[in-house]
Amino acid sequence: MLNQKVVLAYSGGLDTSVAVQWLKEKGYEVIACCLDVGEGKDLDFVQSKALKVGASKSYVIDAKQEFADEFALLALQSHALYEGKYPLVSALSRPLIAKKLVEIAEQENATAVAHGCTGKGNDQVRFEVSIAALNPSLEVLAPVRDWKWSREEEIEYAKEKGIPVPINLDSPYSIDQNLWGRSNECGVLEDPWAAPPEDAYDLTVSIEEAPDTADTVEITFDKGVPVALDSVPYPLHELIAKLNVLGGKHGVGRIDHVENRLIGIKSREVYECPAAITLLKAHKELEDLTLVKELAHYKPVIEKKMTELIYEGLWFSPLNKALKAFLDESQQFVNGTVRVKLFKGHAIVEGRMSPNSLYDENLATYTKADQFDHDAAVGFIKLWGLPTKVSSMVNKPAKEKVSL
Amino acid sequence: MLNQKVVLAYSGGLDTSVAVQWLKEKGYEVIACCLDVGEGKDLDFVQSKALKVGASKSYVIDAKQEFADEFALLALQSHALYEGKYPLVSALSRPLIAKKLVEIAEQENATAVAHGCTGKGNDQVRFEVSIAALNPSLEVLAPVRDWKWSREEEIEYAKEKGIPVPINLDSPYSIDQNLWGRSNECGVLEDPWAAPPEDAYDLTVSIEEAPDTADTVEITFDKGVPVALDSVPYPLHELIAKLNVLGGKHGVGRIDHVENRLIGIKSREVYECPAAITLLKAHKELEDLTLVKELAHYKPVIEKKMTELIYEGLWFSPLNKALKAFLDESQQFVNGTVRVKLFKGHAIVEGRMSPNSLYDENLATYTKADQFDHDAAVGFIKLWGLPTKVSSMVNKPAKEKVSL
Amino acid sequence: MLNQKVVLAYSGGLDTSVAVQWLKEKGYEVIACCLDVGEGKDLDFVQSKALKVGASKSYVIDAKQEFADEFALLALQSHALYEGKYPLVSALSRPLIAKKLVEIAEQENATAVAHGCTGKGNDQVRFEVSIAALNPSLEVLAPVRDWKWSREEEIEYAKEKGIPVPINLDSPYSIDQNLWGRSNECGVLEDPWAAPPEDAYDLTVSIEEAPDTADTVEITFDKGVPVALDSVPYPLHELIAKLNVLGGKHGVGRIDHVENRLIGIKSREVYECPAAITLLKAHKELEDLTLVKELAHYKPVIEKKMTELIYEGLWFSPLNKALKAFLDESQQFVNGTVRVKLFKGHAIVEGRMSPNSLYDENLATYTKADQFDHDAAVGFIKLWGLPTKVSSMVNKPAKEKVSL
Amino acid sequence: MLNQKVVLAYSGGLDTSVAVQWLKEKGYEVIACCLDVGEGKDLDFVQSKALKVGASKSYVIDAKQEFADEFALLALQSHALYEGKYPLVSALSRPLIAKKLVEIAEQENATAVAHGCTGKGNDQVRFEVSIAALNPSLEVLAPVRDWKWSREEEIEYAKEKGIPVPINLDSPYSIDQNLWGRSNECGVLEDPWAAPPEDAYDLTVSIEEAPDTADTVEITFDKGVPVALDSVPYPLHELIAKLNVLGGKHGVGRIDHVENRLIGIKSREVYECPAAITLLKAHKELEDLTLVKELAHYKPVIEKKMTELIYEGLWFSPLNKALKAFLDESQQFVNGTVRVKLFKGHAIVEGRMSPNSLYDENLATYTKADQFDHDAAVGFIKLWGLPTKVSSMVNKPAKEKVSL
Repeated sequence: MLNQKVVLAYSGGLDTSVAVQWLKEKGYEVIACCLDVGEGKDLDFVQSKALKVGASKSYVIDAKQEFADEFALLALQSHALYEGKYPLVSALSRPLIAKKLVEIAEQENATAVAHGCTGKGNDQVRFEVSIAALNPSLEVLAPVRDWKWSREEEIEYAKEKGIPVPINLDSPYSIDQNLWGRSNECGVLEDPWAAPPEDAYDLTVSIEEAPDTADTVEITFDKGVPVALDSVPYPLHELIAKLNVLGGKHGVGRIDHVENRLIGIKSREVYECPAAITLLKAHKELEDLTLVKELAHYKPVIEKKMTELIYEGLWFSPLNKALKAFLDESQQFVNGTVRVKLFKGHAIVEGRMSPNSLYDENLATYTKADQFDHDAAVGFIKLWGLPTKVSSMVNKPAKEKVSL
Repeated sequence: MLNQKVVLAYSGGLDTSVAVQWLKEKGYEVIACCLDVGEGKDLDFVQSKALKVGASKSYVIDAKQEFADEFALLALQSHALYEGKYPLVSALSRPLIAKKLVEIAEQENATAVAHGCTGKGNDQVRFEVSIAALNPSLEVLAPVRDWKWSREEEIEYAKEKGIPVPINLDSPYSIDQNLWGRSNECGVLEDPWAAPPEDAYDLTVSIEEAPDTADTVEITFDKGVPVALDSVPYPLHELIAKLNVLGGKHGVGRIDHVENRLIGIKSREVYECPAAITLLKAHKELEDLTLVKELAHYKPVIEKKMTELIYEGLWFSPLNKALKAFLDESQQFVNGTVRVKLFKGHAIVEGRMSPNSLYDENLATYTKADQFDHDAAVGFIKLWGLPTKVSSMVNKPAKEKVSL
Repeated sequence: MLNQKVVLAYSGGLDTSVAVQWLKEKGYEVIACCLDVGEGKDLDFVQSKALKVGASKSYVIDAKQEFADEFALLALQSHALYEGKYPLVSALSRPLIAKKLVEIAEQENATAVAHGCTGKGNDQVRFEVSIAALNPSLEVLAPVRDWKWSREEEIEYAKEKGIPVPINLDSPYSIDQNLWGRSNECGVLEDPWAAPPEDAYDLTVSIEEAPDTADTVEITFDKGVPVALDSVPYPLHELIAKLNVLGGKHGVGRIDHVENRLIGIKSREVYECPAAITLLKAHKELEDLTLVKELAHYKPVIEKKMTELIYEGLWFSPLNKALKAFLDESQQFVNGTVRVKLFKGHAIVEGRMSPNSLYDENLATYTKADQFDHDAAVGFIKLWGLPTKVSSMVNKPAKEKVSL
Repeated sequence: MLNQKVVLAYSGGLDTSVAVQWLKEKGYEVIACCLDVGEGKDLDFVQSKALKVGASKSYVIDAKQEFADEFALLALQSHALYEGKYPLVSALSRPLIAKKLVEIAEQENATAVAHGCTGKGNDQVRFEVSIAALNPSLEVLAPVRDWKWSREEEIEYAKEKGIPVPINLDSPYSIDQNLWGRSNECGVLEDPWAAPPEDAYDLTVSIEEAPDTADTVEITFDKGVPVALDSVPYPLHELIAKLNVLGGKHGVGRIDHVENRLIGIKSREVYECPAAITLLKAHKELEDLTLVKELAHYKPVIEKKMTELIYEGLWFSPLNKALKAFLDESQQFVNGTVRVKLFKGHAIVEGRMSPNSLYDENLATYTKADQFDHDAAVGFIKLWGLPTKVSSMVNKPAKEKVSL
């Protein structure tokens, strides 16, 4: 067992720094791995800190592009809002981090991977199910879940081992962030009657402080992929980053949610997702213009399943691929431009246009250009309502039966 | 055939005034019937106008309470937003109007009822299917759909018959309104790239003109029914009316929607629903706190069907009753109070509390009060991810098979 | 801790007999509780055996009627076939047994209840979740899951303690049975390519041995409840018992299923459900005749959820009540009689009639009595296909655009 | 208008023969088009008859392979059983026939196509929506729906025009047939209490007359496509034809269904689908073995939609493509062989094996080889049941609150 290697998902914070030592004491050689998925980390600092606190090797990976193209995009096209509200921030990055941990573990001949989650969140599920899917022979370690220390005990251990303890450790919040947004739980938020305090937010201004002048942005989509802002093309991860700044300036994307965790409890969290909310609104409006009715009415069924699947840690289930195949096909004609006004916490779609628009003014109009066949409605209504009518004729108790 | 009676849904506007004459020329005795479902009509004026333009009898009915208690409430508890956006304004009043038309027809021994819809909208379907369900022996007449006149021809006929032609007839808009909101279509709105002009709105101020100071209101629910504002009890129809004023003042509830009509075309409409949007948000948040996870995750499936059923004119289908039975049962524990901040077009839920809250701080907390069993997660994750893991072990092509 | 009481679900078999001793050694006073849910147990024998092997008290309860009326009936009206095949045999009795265990525990001031399930089946989940729902303060013990003995170790312990070891212990099968059917797993069945051997079945003859003459039975339903066979009224539990005999005689209801257990593995089981399959077929056919189209097309969505909920041990979830409210409402008009031919493994519905039949010969006929409005179809088709047509006109790449 | 061409779906029967004349009298040049989709037509006879009764040109097309590969296969992989019973016989051939009509119309520069449906069935919808989707500029004619003749009037017209009137015209049945089965409506079947008479069936023997010796066939699937019988490879259309004969010999696949037509009425039909039922059973069992649980539980949702979409004539809706993309992906691992016993009206799956089997004996077994982690169940159950438990603790009215 001597010198078995473990690849640890390393964030640079106290928990995972302590975990490096703790794992070494269990006899592991610890390889740290830190991903940037858009939280704006100082990767150099994290890389060297890992080595300082005892890692034998320290990987840092800029995964913003992969995160945007393969994870955030799917969430966008799924209109993923867990329980109608939460755009799946952390739920999207966990499978990507798991994938990288497994790749490095295979490359380094490690026998285990480790993450810093506690036993009460969703992320432990997402990590462990993803890792089992990608390489079921890897052992998964969860030091923080295992050691069960109080905050005080953890700090004492850290001091003893010479691990730097951050000054702002008294922060009542537990934060996670990536390109698709920022989540925050704990502290005062644990009372669902209390409004979230201003300092719970970081990416967005309050509506009170939002500027009195709107910004308007035109977002162009190509087969459901956002490809340009105001006609300037951007790679998706840059486009999202830009919208985070622009939306944040106007207070767009604050979410306050009492949600059902996979592990059986309700928790209350706040999220900030300026780009995600802006893009979700714009994309939906373009679909309203371009999807044929039957598809538009059925796609939400798929969306709900995809959202729950991702939230529940099953990204690598074969069901994901099948749902994604549906979604890919659905985006075929989602082309066009949406004009969004960002103002006082709103992302308001003011206009949408598309070469594939199914809105036909000549059918919809009430002017003389009308080409709709009004007489067809008579027959339509007759057959549409026939089952209800027959049911009523047969089962109405108080009335005598009437003939059709 | 002489002197057969028809009960006409009479609004006081040009179309239905002309319809009185047109029906009389077809040999009918016309009984006018006008409902107030919250649009603030001058009922006395409408009543006497009906007689003036030729009706033999003129009913006016204040149906606000029935509309709120039996129609708007169901839409609220269904979280009814057609295509995720439209809170079913007209779709809710049509079955109620149909019900009243049929009641009067039966009372008056009329052989027919009539409505003023054209052949291109959803409302003709809602009227005709509802009437067929309630009394399949009644004939349904649709004069406006039948006469197929241009606006000019209609005005000429009106003048000829001495029917007053309103001065504001040039209004490019076609409006419908009730307690649950106001809908508006036509004119400039027919270009989906154009932003709706300010004069398309009536119940709400623009965000630009909304006051700089928020109002906060506490809404209390009893078994899913809104019963009080700031602890003052109100009948539902009054509570809705109050919230329309308060929400409207802050610009809450503007909706701009390109939607799929039942009759097969896309149309673009704007809606204003200050009370509906405020109540929908508050009710959802209280459910987030009080519904058990399985119910919370399944209820949207029911909601979607109920919404489509109502939109599609099938209010009186037996399926409505069955869906409603589910919803009624689901509201058993939806008790409590929600604090909503109305500000700059937003209805923001800042706090929620309930005697039936399933949010348990002792389970959710990250403090020492934590009673959650962290070890249980290990077993949970193992079995939760087992299908994905086995699938991966069996079907991963490139890797050798590994043992569990 | 001395003399705390535990109520044990006692079957009379080896496992639960050993469990009595094992629990006593852990310091419990053991109260045995045995339910008859239709497996035809010798209750007197079981009652006295419990006392012989060490229980301080021994309850036996005839729960057939309650099982039929409250559990099997719901499965019937839900058309419950897990994964399209399994009519939920054991899944239905577990919540009832849990309910009785809790009732006795409360009556006896016991602090714990115990069941004899292993750690690999669905039933442990059903027991434990049900008990937690009914009385969350009761401890739940699972001796068989805890002791982890091999068969040999268990027998040795039994002999040592003077617990009678059944002679037929070598049976390769693990059986559970109630009014709704009989399940069987293990042994040769573990190879999914092998056909189940004849001795895996007990309630039914093979098709080869089924009589050459059919039996025909008329089943009468009142609001979806089977109330009579060949016009003779029976309480539901007797009606089911009779159909088990009659169906079994003709080989009806054998099922061979590779299924997904809740706890993450696939298992292969065989079931025999002569009455269940016969009633499910008859009930469905009566619904085909009496349910309005929209309800008929939506009810399967509810059925699927109810089936999974029950299979997954969530009988006492509030979601059950809400789904049941839907189902109750749906059965309002499911009245009438269905004629079923039992023959060579089939339950074939040959005829169905109902006072609430929505099949209208005058609409359906192709004779001169036809009252259907053939012209209505033209308008119906036009609008029904309009979205597809517009989509095609807009998005067909190769063709020039054509006008409507 | 002179000499405009119409392409008529020609069957060789009386209705479409009369239609040739009727269309000619309306001024059209009539091009007949007859497809063989597996009903075993004498194509030479039909081709020359079309010319005899007045067609200017007569196409006959053997479309069996295309029908099997593109239509029947999708129905199979969708487990398409409309209302749980009807495997979509005619609903599958209509879009294919429409496609061929449109192809020939475009090739011949015809301005119209015509079909022989009445105004009361589903097929008129399927034809007309399909044609509008494929070429919205083509006019669609429905002579039989338009002329509204009684049988007697039609015969009189035929005699007058020298159109041969078949001798068996008194047949009370209306038949349609293709590789996927045979449908039959009318006559005595219009009484849903009456059992279908033997002469309503043609492809299958009765169970009474089925042989006393079973046939067993091994069906091999490759990515969900049936490719071999008893290890002998066949093109799909031949494989289906063989199974129709073999299944028919054993009375497999008789269906008696009271169904909801799209056009709003209930009708009663009988179907015979020996191959379809055999393949549907075999395919489902192979999926039970090879699909991961989440996919297995979700696929039925897709199947139901696909089935209804096809039944309702929307084959060419973009939704079909999206659903198909899901299904294609789902079939990735549906490889293996299923052993089916055909006997006395049954197609009984006795064994299934697959290189992609997710049934793992080492997990499922109750022998010593067991590798399942029994302890994991404890944690799983705790979290799985936690929402129900908390709900019960909070909302149980009669009991005092207990702590977790």
